[in-house]
Amino acid sequence: MQQQIIDLAIELIKRPSLSPDDQGCQALIGALLEAQGFRLEFMPFNHTLNLWATHGSGAPLTVFAGHTDVVPAGDEKQWRYPPFAAHIEGDMLYGRGAADMKGSLAAMLIAALEYVKNNPEHKGTVAFLITSDEEAAAKDGTAKVVDRLMARGEKIHYCVVGEPSASRRLGDVVKNGRRGSLTADLYIEGIQGHVAYPHLARNPIHNALPFLQELIAYQWDRGNEFFPPTGLQIANIHGGTGSNNVIPGELYIQFNLRYSTEIDDAEIKAKVAQMLQKHGLNYRITWNLSGKPFLTRPGKLLDAVSEALYHCLALKPQLETGGGTSDGRFIALTGAEVVELGPLNATIHKVDECVSCSDLGALGKVYRRILSNLLDA
Amino acid sequence: MQQQIIDLAIELIKRPSLSPDDQGCQALIGALLEAQGFRLEFMPFNHTLNLWATHGSGAPLTVFAGHTDVVPAGDEKQWRYPPFAAHIEGDMLYGRGAADMKGSLAAMLIAALEYVKNNPEHKGTVAFLITSDEEAAAKDGTAKVVDRLMARGEKIHYCVVGEPSASRRLGDVVKNGRRGSLTADLYIEGIQGHVAYPHLARNPIHNALPFLQELIAYQWDRGNEFFPPTGLQIANIHGGTGSNNVIPGELYIQFNLRYSTEIDDAEIKAKVAQMLQKHGLNYRITWNLSGKPFLTRPGKLLDAVSEALYHCLALKPQLETGGGTSDGRFIALTGAEVVELGPLNATIHKVDECVSCSDLGALGKVYRRILSNLLDA
Ligand SMILES: [Zn+2]
Ligand SMILES: [Zn+2]
Repeated sequence: MQQQIIDLAIELIKRPSLSPDDQGCQALIGALLEAQGFRLEFMPFNHTLNLWATHGSGAPLTVFAGHTDVVPAGDEKQWRYPPFAAHIEGDMLYGRGAADMKGSLAAMLIAALEYVKNNPEHKGTVAFLITSDEEAAAKDGTAKVVDRLMARGEKIHYCVVGEPSASRRLGDVVKNGRRGSLTADLYIEGIQGHVAYPHLARNPIHNALPFLQELIAYQWDRGNEFFPPTGLQIANIHGGTGSNNVIPGELYIQFNLRYSTEIDDAEIKAKVAQMLQKHGLNYRITWNLSGKPFLTRPGKLLDAVSEALYHCLALKPQLETGGGTSDGRFIALTGAEVVELGPLNATIHKVDECVSCSDLGALGKVYRRILSNLLDA
Repeated sequence: MQQQIIDLAIELIKRPSLSPDDQGCQALIGALLEAQGFRLEFMPFNHTLNLWATHGSGAPLTVFAGHTDVVPAGDEKQWRYPPFAAHIEGDMLYGRGAADMKGSLAAMLIAALEYVKNNPEHKGTVAFLITSDEEAAAKDGTAKVVDRLMARGEKIHYCVVGEPSASRRLGDVVKNGRRGSLTADLYIEGIQGHVAYPHLARNPIHNALPFLQELIAYQWDRGNEFFPPTGLQIANIHGGTGSNNVIPGELYIQFNLRYSTEIDDAEIKAKVAQMLQKHGLNYRITWNLSGKPFLTRPGKLLDAVSEALYHCLALKPQLETGGGTSDGRFIALTGAEVVELGPLNATIHKVDECVSCSDLGALGKVYRRILSNLLDA
C-alpha cells in the first residue's frame, strides 16, 4: 500500500498546481476513482475545479475532503531539491504540497480504493470532495460544493479532512474543530489640524488609545474543554499624513478575533460597538466573518478515528481546535461530524516542504481502518 | 507712505517666488536700499538667495527680517483673482504672499527708507535680513546668514520679524517668543507571527499601547506667564503587513512636542526613554530638534514696539508665544531681542490670501516709529 501512495503522491507533486490551477490533478484522481466504480461529478466554479465522487449509496455519507492546490514555492534556489521534482531522500519525499496535502490526498485515495475493492457491499456512501482552491480565496471551492449538496438534500454524516494535523509524530493530534475568525476594519474619525494648534483639531490616535487598551485587555471568554479562550490581535494600524506637524483626521485599525464556541460573532460586534460608544468615539466599522467556529464532539466519527489510531499506531490522539482555518469549517456548517487528520505540519508552506514515506503508508492504513470502523457491513 | 508700500507689495506679489526661487525680489529690494545708502551683501547658499543690508554703524544693530518666498498657490481656479495678479478690490490686496509676507516686507522697506532719509545720523545700524527660503526647508536661509554674522562677531540687538501676527485687528498680537519643536521617530520592535498563534509572536501594537497612553497623558510642565504648557501630538503611526492574519514585527510612531521654556529637549528625551524602559519596550528612537524655544522678555525692544502701537493704533498688544515656528528662532539664538509683528494671519497659506491696504499703511508707520524709538539720535 505504501508504494502505491508514494507513487501517486509523486505524480501529484510533479504537477505545479498553484491555486486555483489544478494542472490535471483532479483528472488523474478521477480516473482512478472511476476505475474502481466511483461516480464522478465535476463542479467547476470560475477558475476553481472541484470533484465530487461517490461509491455506494445512502447513509452514512462518509467524505474524504482535500485540495489539489498548493501555495507558491517562493525562491526555488533556496530549496535543496526543485520544489516540483518530488525527490526522495531516505524516508523523506520533498516537494511543494508533499505535506499540504498531496501526500495525504494520495493516502486517502489508495485507502478508499482498496477499501471499496475489498468491501464492495459496504454500508452507506464513500465520497471524495476535492477542490483546487483551498489555499487562496477558497470562494469557489468547498464552500460552493457544500452549498450544492445541501441544496440537493445530500447530508454529509462524517468527514475526514486530510490537512496536516500532526505536531511531533503521526497521529498525535486530531483537530476536532476550529475557532471562528472575525475581522474588523475600524476607522476612528478626528479633525485634522496643525500640531501647534491642537485645540482646533481632534487627534484620532490620542482619542483611540483608551479604547484600544480596553479592547486588547478584554476577556471575551475563558474558552472551554475544547477551545482556548477567544483572542484578539490588532494586525494593522495606520494614521498620519506623513508630515510631523499635522494632526491626522482619521485612524485606521484592523483587528482579528479567533473565537471559541463560548461566544458568537453578534456578541463580539455588540461588545465592540459598546466599547466604542463608551469612549465617545466617532467611527465607522465593517466586519468580515471568515468562518464561524465549529466543534465535533466525541461521537461515532471520533470513536472511529481514535480506534484506528490506537489500532495502527498504538496511540491516543490529542484533540485540538487551535491554529488557522481550513475547509472543514464549510463542511461542519452542514451539521456533519468533521475531523482533520493528516501528516506532520512542521514544513508546510515553507522551503523544503517534505513528508515521511513511512508516515504516508501508515496514514493510508489509518484512513482505511476509519472507513472500516464506519462502513463495514 | 501707504501708496508706496502698496506699489512695492504689488511688484513683489507679481513675482511668483515659490521657495527658494526668489524671482528677482531681492534684486528689486536691494536696488531700493542701495539708492538710500544701504550697503548690500548677497549671501547665496545653494539655491537660496539671502540679502544682508546695513545702514549706519555700530550698536544697537536693529534688524528687520523677512522672506521673499511664498508657498504654492494650490488650485488657481479656486482663487477669485489669479494668485500672482496682485488685484485690489476695495481696501484688499489679493495674492499669494500678500499677507505672508510681501505686504509687511514692503511696509518695512518703505518705513526704513523714509526713516534713514529723514534721520541720516541715526544711532547704531538699521539692517535687513531677507531670505528666499523660509517656507520650505529653511536650511540655507536665515540660519546660515546668522551663522556668518556670528562668526564675524556682528551682534544683533533688536529684530522685528514681519510675519503676520495679528489675529483680529492690526497690532492686537505681538509674538515675543516661540515654543520649541522636537520630533521623535520611534520604532517599537515585536516579533512577527500568525494571529492564530500569538504565543509565538509579540505584538508591538499591543505592547506599545500602555506607553502611548502615558505619553499623551503626561504633563510636561504647566507653562509660564509667556508660554502655554508643553504639548505633545502623535502625528503618524504605522504598523501591520496589510494581512489580517499576521501580527506585525514593528510599529512606527512619530510624535512632536511644542515645548515651553520650562523644560529643555534633554529633559524631554530622558523622560521618554524612562517611560519606554518602564514599559519594557524594545525600541529605537531618533530625535529631530527643529528649534529651541525662545523668549524676548519685556525690555527695550518690547517697550519700543508697545509705544509705537499705542501711538499709531491706540492699542496695547497681547504678547503671545503660541503657533508654529518662524525664522525668529535662528535670530534669537544670537541673544537678540526678537519680536514678530505683521498683518492679519487669517488668510495665509490659503486660497484668496489678502491683506488690507490701509493696514499696510498703518504698519509702515508702526515700523517707522519703532526705528525712531530705538535709534533716534
Ligand atoms: Zn492544506
Ligand atoms: Zn511667513
